[in-house]
Amino acid sequence: MKAAIYQGNRTFVTGVSEPVGPGAGQVRLNVAYCGVCGTDVHIFHGVMDKRVGPPQIIGHEASAEVAEIGEGVEGVSIGDRVAVRPLQFGEPTPFDKGCPHVGKNLKFIGIDTPGAMQGSWTVPAYTLHKLPTSLSLEHGALIEPVAVACHDVRLGGICPNENCVVLGGGPIGLLIALVARQKGARVLVSEVNPARIELARSLGLEAVNPAEQDLIREVASWSGDAMADAVFEVSGSAPAVEIMTELLNVRGRIVMVAIHSAPKPVNLFRFFWSEIRMIGARLYEAEDFDEAIRFAADGVLPLDALITRIDPIEATQQVFETIDANPQGMKYLIQCGQ
Amino acid sequence: MKAAIYQGNRTFVTGVSEPVGPGAGQVRLNVAYCGVCGTDVHIFHGVMDKRVGPPQIIGHEASAEVAEIGEGVEGVSIGDRVAVRPLQFGEPTPFDKGCPHVGKNLKFIGIDTPGAMQGSWTVPAYTLHKLPTSLSLEHGALIEPVAVACHDVRLGGICPNENCVVLGGGPIGLLIALVARQKGARVLVSEVNPARIELARSLGLEAVNPAEQDLIREVASWSGDAMADAVFEVSGSAPAVEIMTELLNVRGRIVMVAIHSAPKPVNLFRFFWSEIRMIGARLYEAEDFDEAIRFAADGVLPLDALITRIDPIEATQQVFETIDANPQGMKYLIQCGQ
Repeated sequence: MKAAIYQGNRTFVTGVSEPVGPGAGQVRLNVAYCGVCGTDVHIFHGVMDKRVGPPQIIGHEASAEVAEIGEGVEGVSIGDRVAVRPLQFGEPTPFDKGCPHVGKNLKFIGIDTPGAMQGSWTVPAYTLHKLPTSLSLEHGALIEPVAVACHDVRLGGICPNENCVVLGGGPIGLLIALVARQKGARVLVSEVNPARIELARSLGLEAVNPAEQDLIREVASWSGDAMADAVFEVSGSAPAVEIMTELLNVRGRIVMVAIHSAPKPVNLFRFFWSEIRMIGARLYEAEDFDEAIRFAADGVLPLDALITRIDPIEATQQVFETIDANPQGMKYLIQCGQ
Repeated sequence: MKAAIYQGNRTFVTGVSEPVGPGAGQVRLNVAYCGVCGTDVHIFHGVMDKRVGPPQIIGHEASAEVAEIGEGVEGVSIGDRVAVRPLQFGEPTPFDKGCPHVGKNLKFIGIDTPGAMQGSWTVPAYTLHKLPTSLSLEHGALIEPVAVACHDVRLGGICPNENCVVLGGGPIGLLIALVARQKGARVLVSEVNPARIELARSLGLEAVNPAEQDLIREVASWSGDAMADAVFEVSGSAPAVEIMTELLNVRGRIVMVAIHSAPKPVNLFRFFWSEIRMIGARLYEAEDFDEAIRFAADGVLPLDALITRIDPIEATQQVFETIDANPQGMKYLIQCGQ
């Protein structure tokens, strides 16, 4: 079995994936596919080396088959096809208020511990979600990002017929748009990259380019002056933060999905004046994985259109270089098994 | 009957309050007391002249007795003692989503239309909330600011035993603290003015001075490292906006009560990381007035301690000058009737 080992300094080398026998409560997997997340690209850029500690195997968007089962694990059989919810829960604290997915002692598998870009991977059994046989392993590797979108839409409390604006049409932004549409919402995507706008439109989504059109006016005319009930900020950009409060109607919600590493000016007057709200959303909980698997199995999301390409694990270095050179791409999958 | 007439340029003159016969759906009141709100002080400073249009009678924190009843008004009798919810609802729009108190066509009585600093005042009957006979008319003039606090605490979703931090210990901040405590929350007030700290402590509230103590550490030690479940931002200050996100635990809520006229930098990363939320809160709805009257009538709020002084209407000019010179004062009431 092979592994793509991140060495620091924008470099992956192909090495050996040594099977690790599963301890109590663990399962050893044969990984099928692992998607490349924006966070993996950040790691490739070296900005998370302190946390990752190269040389290290990264990756956390995996589909796999169960190969070996540790002591005390129930409800899992060898050969089961699974998606992995890559969260290793730590000791709970009063600060966490029963939300281990954002708890103080959470470890993220594939960042804080070895990840899925390898043939053999050993993880806690509680991270597994079984995939129905109707679901391909390629689509199985998309369950993790779909679960992110399910979580964001759930925390945003999206209801049928609500007007939702998604700021940022990358993989997570489009998945949020697709999940919100699936929940019955009207959706408008705001994105500056023409290729991504084209893809959004090809999926039947309405999309505008805020660099070319006045977004506030577009939302007003699209909504018959009702404006948006919810805005998803997925772009991480300063102009989006500046405009997000202007797009909402009374008690409208901003769902803060993007990672803004530095504080940015926010129009707090609009919060007061129209009683708008902002809801932070990070990662997912078990129910979001369950919902993502249901959506994928029911075929209601156009997942094939989101897979830009699939490459063998030996090509991991080139995949990351391609992503850097190709900002309009969507999901790149790495084939980790034989 | 007399009126305090705002002339612009930091000037009130005493004039005549001409009784206006109530039209259909209206009621004419004999005003007893009118409290001075921070907004009235802003008006005095001249920054709202365009909206107010001096010469104009202002004031919106009133207790009164019903003097005359217009056509079609039911459920109100001459002599009823009332508090006034000073909101004149306009034509609803899709933007308002059924929330007329923050609707696009709302007029605020006492800012956009003539207010309560006069002996005789004519208002829509739907603005009235009857006061029980056990409640003094002085306390009746505090119902409006208490209703603000009830609204803020209700929108914050405060539950028993939650840790609440109130940033800013002025009249609204202290009322929020008192209402939250009445709902069973643990409350800590953060305030820089020593006299206001002293008053908060005299009411049995815990209070810290963030200019002298490290507020994050104080909240950590006060909460046993659980941090705050809710933070009320009532100060309107930049340091409060900077620190508010640091005080909350997982899914903690910021209630944005203060008016921040310019955008301020907000730590959006904390929203993402700990899934924190922010809820804008403005004015009140009918149920908030009902709750405020219940609390006041039950005597569970120390309202006497919040009344700094009571002056006759002829002294309105001096009252506003005193407030400007005395930033630690709480509620100043103007006696509008004989």
